[in-house]
Amino acid sequence: MKKTDINELRKDPLLGRWIAVLSESLSPSQYNQAHHEEEPQEESCLLCAGREAETPKEIMVVPNPAGTEASGQWWTRVIPNFTPVFKVEGDLGRRGEGMYDKMNSIGASEIIIESPHHSVEPEDMGLDQMIRLIHTYRDRMTDLEKDERLRYTLIYKNHGRSAGALFSHPVSSLVATPVIPKRVKEELDGAKQYFTYKERCLFCDVMREELRVESRVIIETRYYMAFCPYASKFPFEIWILPKKHSCIFQETGADELEDLALILSTVLKKLRNLLPSLSYNYFIHSAPNRVPRKDHWHTLGEDYHWHIEIMPRLVNTSGFEWGSGFYILPTSPEDAAKYLREV
Amino acid sequence: MKKTDINELRKDPLLGRWIAVLSESLSPSQYNQAHHEEEPQEESCLLCAGREAETPKEIMVVPNPAGTEASGQWWTRVIPNFTPVFKVEGDLGRRGEGMYDKMNSIGASEIIIESPHHSVEPEDMGLDQMIRLIHTYRDRMTDLEKDERLRYTLIYKNHGRSAGALFSHPVSSLVATPVIPKRVKEELDGAKQYFTYKERCLFCDVMREELRVESRVIIETRYYMAFCPYASKFPFEIWILPKKHSCIFQETGADELEDLALILSTVLKKLRNLLPSLSYNYFIHSAPNRVPRKDHWHTLGEDYHWHIEIMPRLVNTSGFEWGSGFYILPTSPEDAAKYLREV
Repeated sequence: MKKTDINELRKDPLLGRWIAVLSESLSPSQYNQAHHEEEPQEESCLLCAGREAETPKEIMVVPNPAGTEASGQWWTRVIPNFTPVFKVEGDLGRRGEGMYDKMNSIGASEIIIESPHHSVEPEDMGLDQMIRLIHTYRDRMTDLEKDERLRYTLIYKNHGRSAGALFSHPVSSLVATPVIPKRVKEELDGAKQYFTYKERCLFCDVMREELRVESRVIIETRYYMAFCPYASKFPFEIWILPKKHSCIFQETGADELEDLALILSTVLKKLRNLLPSLSYNYFIHSAPNRVPRKDHWHTLGEDYHWHIEIMPRLVNTSGFEWGSGFYILPTSPEDAAKYLREV
Repeated sequence: MKKTDINELRKDPLLGRWIAVLSESLSPSQYNQAHHEEEPQEESCLLCAGREAETPKEIMVVPNPAGTEASGQWWTRVIPNFTPVFKVEGDLGRRGEGMYDKMNSIGASEIIIESPHHSVEPEDMGLDQMIRLIHTYRDRMTDLEKDERLRYTLIYKNHGRSAGALFSHPVSSLVATPVIPKRVKEELDGAKQYFTYKERCLFCDVMREELRVESRVIIETRYYMAFCPYASKFPFEIWILPKKHSCIFQETGADELEDLALILSTVLKKLRNLLPSLSYNYFIHSAPNRVPRKDHWHTLGEDYHWHIEIMPRLVNTSGFEWGSGFYILPTSPEDAAKYLREV
C-alpha cells in the first residue's frame, strides 16, 4: 500500500497533538511477526568501531586521534537515522485535507552513537566520555536551531527494549520537528500561567521548596540538583534541574556541562544499582527554537527552565492511564529518593 | 515504609495532572521480583463461578436464574477492587503541602466481571452477553454520578498483559475520581474551543467528514459508526461514536445499547481476526458528572460527544513519545480501516 515517500504530519483536531503517518504502512502480519524477532547481535552491529563506512554519512563526530581503527578513531558520532521519520529536504507544505490539517514531515532524525564500544554505557566509561556525550547533545541542538523551519529539537535516550530501544549499542536519539510538540507546549503553558500569577519561575520555586523539604532530593552538585518530583508519573522518576535559572540548554557553559555529566552519570549509576535490569527513558526539555520563542514569549524565557527528566519503565500503562491521564505511583517520591540517596 | 492506609492524590504543579501515591510503597526489590511472576492460573481464579464467597461483597449483579452454582447464577458481577486505589469512605480533605496541592483518594475502584467463565471474552459469548455487559457499564455509571464528591467515572478494559491486564479472567475496570482527569479535561477544552469557533460539535463534524470521505470508516450500524481517526495515536486505533449527538453515555436508551453491543463486539472480533495475539485497551469517554457539568458548561453538553476509544498496543512507546507527546503511526488510518473492513 505504498503511496509516497514523504511522511505526513497530521493534527488531531480534538487535542491539538501532531502525529506522523509513515508513507509505507505496516500490514497486520508484520506486527504479528515482530514478536519473534531476535535481539540484534554484537557481530552484526553497524554502530561499532570499524564499520563506519556502512552507515549513512556522519553529521558530526568527536574525533579520538589516539584511537585505532579497531578501537574507534572517534569518541562520539552522529549519523542520520536509518529510517528517518523527519527529513531535512523539502518545504513545510502546510495544507488542509477536508476539515483536517496536515503538513510535510520536515525536520531531523539522528542517531547519537555514545561510544565506539558495543556493550558499555557512557556512565561506565568515566566522566570524560559522559562530558563528550553532553557536548555532542549541545552541539547538535545549537546547529539545528539555525534552521528556521524547525521549532523544536528533542534529545532522548531509550535504554532497554521495553523503553523502545532498537539497538543494543549505546545510543541517544535526536528528533527535530517543525511544530512545538504537545507535551512541551503544555509545559510552556503551565509555566507561563504560574509566572503570570506569581511573577516567579515555577521551576525555581520547586527547586527552593525541594531544597527546603529535603525528603525528595537525591543529590546536589555545584550547578545542578536531582530529585524525585512531588507528583511523579512513574516510580523512581528523577528530574535534574540547573540551579541557576536558564530556559535554554544550549547556553550552558563548559564547566556547567562537566557538572551536568557528573550528576547525570551518578544518578544513572544509582538507578542501575537499585534496579539492575531497569529499562528507562530520559529526555532534555529546553525552550523552543529562537524564532517562535521571541514571538510567543514576551517574558523572554523568565518563565521556563530547562531540565532533564528520567523515566524508569517499571510499570505497565493500562487503559486507566491512557483514558484518564491520571497515574498511580506505587512508590512514593520520598521513599524513592531515600533509596536513591542511600544506594 | 508504611505511613497511613489512605492513598494521597497530588497535583503536578506544571501540567495540572493529578496522580495517586499509594500509602504503602513498593521497594526496588519488589519491582525486580515482579518480572518473574507467573501468569495467574485458571484453578486459582477467584473471579470464576463458584468462588463468589471468597471475593469482596458484590456491588451489583446481573442474575442468571437458570444458571447452576458451577456455571454461575449470574451473567455479570461487579465487586470492589481487591486493592482499591480510590475508596468511597472519607472526605475529600483538599489541602496544601508546602507549595503543592493534595487531597484524599476518595472515589471508587471496581472490577466488572464480564462472565462467570474463565477463558472467554464477551464478544465470543454472543450478542446477549455483550448487551448485559454494556448495561452493567451504564448502571454503574448512573449509580456513581449520584455521589456529589465524584466528578468523573471512567470505565475501561485492559486486554492482555502488555495492556496492563492483571487477571486472565475477562474483566473490565471502573474508577471514579474526585477530579476531572487531565485527558478528559483536554478533550472538553478542545471540543469547547472548536464549538466556540464554529458553533458546531467537533465530533459531529468529524463524523460527517468521515462518512463523506469513507476511507477511514470500518462499519456503520443504525445508531453508531466505527472508524480509524485521521490522527490516530496508535496503529489500528478505533473510535466508536453515537451518530445522534449526546454528551452522556448513561442516557443511551435500551435499543441503542443493543446496537452498541453489536458494533463493539463486531469491531473487537475484527481486530482479533487481524491481529490474533493483540493486547488492547478500550475506554468510554462521557461528559463529567452532573454537578460540575452544569457549572462549567454553559453550552449544556452541545460541545461534547461521548465515545469509545479502542487502543491496540502494537508498538512500544519510547522517550520520543513521552518527551514530546508526538506519536509515529506505522500504519495509516486509511490502510488500517481497509484491513478492518475486509477481514
